[in-house]
Amino acid sequence: MRTAFTEMVGVRHPLVGFSRSPGVVAAVSRAGGLGVFAASPYRPEELDAQLAWIEEQAGGRPYGVDLLVPPATEGGADLLATLRAQIPERHVRFVQELLARYGIEAPDPTRGNGASDDTVRGLSPEGVHEILDVTFAHRVALVANGLGTPPRSMLDGGRAHGVPVASLVGAGKHARAQLDLGVDVLVAQGTEAGGHTGTIATMVLTPEVVDLAGGVPVLAAGGIADGRQMAAALALGASGAWCGSVWLNSHEDVTTPVVKQKLVEATSADTVRSRSRTGKPARQLRSAWHDAWDGQEAPEPLPMQQQLLLAKDAWAEIDRAAETGSPGARELESFFVGQVVGAFGELRSAERITEEIVAGCERRLAELARLLG
Amino acid sequence: MRTAFTEMVGVRHPLVGFSRSPGVVAAVSRAGGLGVFAASPYRPEELDAQLAWIEEQAGGRPYGVDLLVPPATEGGADLLATLRAQIPERHVRFVQELLARYGIEAPDPTRGNGASDDTVRGLSPEGVHEILDVTFAHRVALVANGLGTPPRSMLDGGRAHGVPVASLVGAGKHARAQLDLGVDVLVAQGTEAGGHTGTIATMVLTPEVVDLAGGVPVLAAGGIADGRQMAAALALGASGAWCGSVWLNSHEDVTTPVVKQKLVEATSADTVRSRSRTGKPARQLRSAWHDAWDGQEAPEPLPMQQQLLLAKDAWAEIDRAAETGSPGARELESFFVGQVVGAFGELRSAERITEEIVAGCERRLAELARLLG
Repeated sequence: MRTAFTEMVGVRHPLVGFSRSPGVVAAVSRAGGLGVFAASPYRPEELDAQLAWIEEQAGGRPYGVDLLVPPATEGGADLLATLRAQIPERHVRFVQELLARYGIEAPDPTRGNGASDDTVRGLSPEGVHEILDVTFAHRVALVANGLGTPPRSMLDGGRAHGVPVASLVGAGKHARAQLDLGVDVLVAQGTEAGGHTGTIATMVLTPEVVDLAGGVPVLAAGGIADGRQMAAALALGASGAWCGSVWLNSHEDVTTPVVKQKLVEATSADTVRSRSRTGKPARQLRSAWHDAWDGQEAPEPLPMQQQLLLAKDAWAEIDRAAETGSPGARELESFFVGQVVGAFGELRSAERITEEIVAGCERRLAELARLLG
Repeated sequence: MRTAFTEMVGVRHPLVGFSRSPGVVAAVSRAGGLGVFAASPYRPEELDAQLAWIEEQAGGRPYGVDLLVPPATEGGADLLATLRAQIPERHVRFVQELLARYGIEAPDPTRGNGASDDTVRGLSPEGVHEILDVTFAHRVALVANGLGTPPRSMLDGGRAHGVPVASLVGAGKHARAQLDLGVDVLVAQGTEAGGHTGTIATMVLTPEVVDLAGGVPVLAAGGIADGRQMAAALALGASGAWCGSVWLNSHEDVTTPVVKQKLVEATSADTVRSRSRTGKPARQLRSAWHDAWDGQEAPEPLPMQQQLLLAKDAWAEIDRAAETGSPGARELESFFVGQVVGAFGELRSAERITEEIVAGCERRLAELARLLG
C-alpha cells in the first residue's frame, strides 16, 4: 500500500508504531512500518544510546522520534527545586493520604524520588534543545511533537537535516495553526486515543483534518489496533495509521507485568480522560487513582510540570509496591491507553502485531472492493 | 453494495436515515436507503397519519420506525401530574431563573405548557404499547429501540409481523444482553453520535460489537455524514451506516431556522454530552443552557421523565422566543447533534444527501481497492 506518507518516509506499510519501548520501535520498523520512539523521558546521553540500539536492531530501516513539547514551559538552573516549591501543600497531602490509604509510602515532597526529574527536565526549553540535538545527530526519518505546536527549533532542525516534522492535532483549529507553521505531516488524533487527547473522535476528526490539510499527508490516530481499523483510517482519507496503545499488548513493551495484566482484563469502557497524571487531559486506564482525583475532596490537578512531578514520583512508588505484590498498588496501577484496550488478548510480538494489522487491512480492502460488485 | 442488512430489509444502499422529520424519512427511502422515523413524541393517531404520509411519499419503498423505550418507566392515569409533582422546587426555580436571565418567561411548573406531554406519555408502558400497535399496523421494514433493551412487546410484535427488530448499543456488555434477547440488528453507536450515546467511539465500538454479534448484522452509528465515513463504517465490519445528525442540514428537516443556522456555524468541538435535556447522557450542541447546567450552582439533572418535562416545556418557550428574534433565546438554543456538525454547510435535500453519501462511499471503496495495486 503506497501512500503519500510511505513515499515521504520510505516505508513499505502506512503504519506508525509509536512507543516508549525501544524493542517495539525497532520491531515495527523491521516489519516494514515506521517505529516512532517517545524520547521525552530521557537524558541526552541515554537517548543517544537508545537511538543507536534502535538503529542497529531495525537493521537500517527508517524510524522516527516523538517529543512532548508543550507550547510554553519554564526552564532555568534550579528548575526542579523551583517547580517542587510551587506544588501546594494541599496537593502533596492529597497524594500522601491517597497512597497511604493503599498501603504505600509517598516520597519526600521537597526532594521527590528522582522518577520525574528527567521527564520534567525534558519539557524545559534547555531539555528540548538537548534532545533535538541528539535526535538530529541520528538518521531519523520523522520527528514528531506529541503536544501541539512544534517549537521553532524542531521545525528549523527538520528543514536543516531534511527530516519531515509531524505534529499531533486534536481539533481543526489546531491543524490550521500547524499548517501555517509548515509541518510536513499532521497526525489527527481522536479522543479514543491513549495519552494526551482532545474530545473529537477519529471518525470525525480525520476527514476534517484531511480537508484542511490541502495535500499535506494526514495520519489517523486513536482507535486503531487491527486491520479493519487501519482500513477505516485509510477510508477516512488518511495516508496511514498511527498506533500507540496496541503495542502495550506486546512482549517487547516495557510496562510492568501488573499493568500489562490489568490492560488485558480491561474493557473498552474502562478508560478515562483525566488531568490527574500529567496536568493535561490524557486518556488512561481508570483506576482507584482516578476515582480519588474525581472525588469531591480532590484538588484540581496542577499545570503540566508540577502535576508530572507529583504524579510521576508517586507512580514510581506505586510501581515498586505493585511489583512486590501489594494489592493496594494493584488497585492504583494504570497507564496511558486508548479505548482499544478492550481488544487486548494474549501478548504477541510487536513484529507479529504489525504484520497482522497490515495483512488484516489488505484483506479488508479486498473484501470492500468486492462489495462494489 | 449488497450486505446482510440490505438483504434483510430490502433496500438498495446500506444506509439508514434516522430522523424525526417525516420528509427526511421518505426522501431517504425514496433514494434507496432506509428512512427510519423517530416515533416517540407522537400520539397514536398522529403517528398513524405520519406513517401513512411517509408510505405515500416513499412510493412503497421500505422504511422503519424508532422508539425510545427506557428499561423501566412509570405509567398510570395521572402520569403527568404525578411526574410534575416529583420535580423538586430547586429545579423549577433554576430553570425559571435561567430563562429569565435570557429574557424568557418559563411556563407554570405545576401544569407545564403541554410541549412535553406526548413525549413523556410515549415513554410510559401504555404509551409504548399504543405506539407499537400503530407501528405494526403499517408495513414497516424495521422497528428499532433507541434506548437500550427493547421491551418484550416490541420483540414479540416483530416476530408476529415478520419485522426485524434493531436496538442501539453503546458498549459491548449491552450488545451481549440484546443478542441474548434475540434482536435482529445491532446499531453500534459511538460517543461522537448525536442524542443518547455512551463513551466509546465508533472506531472502537463497531468491530467490538461485530465480533460479539456472531453474524447478526451490525450498523455503525456516530460520526457518519459523508461517503468516506460510510466507507470507514463498512471497513470496520458494519453491514451499513446509521446516520442521524446529517439530516439536520437538509431542507426537509423540521428543526427551527435559528437552530439550523447555529448548527451550520458550529465546529466539531462545539457539542457536549449532557444529562440536562433528557435526564440521560445525550450529545447536543453546546449552548448557554449547558453552560448553566454545568455551573457550580446547578442542580443534578433529574431522572428521564422528570427532566424531559422540565426541559421540553422550557424548550417550547425558548423556541417560541427564538423565532421572534430574541437574542437571549438564540444563546440558549440547541438540539441533539453529533460531532459531524462541524461539516455542516449549505442546506441540501435529503435525497441529494443520501445520493452523495452513497456515491462518495462507492468512490472511496474504488480508490481503496487501487491502494492494493
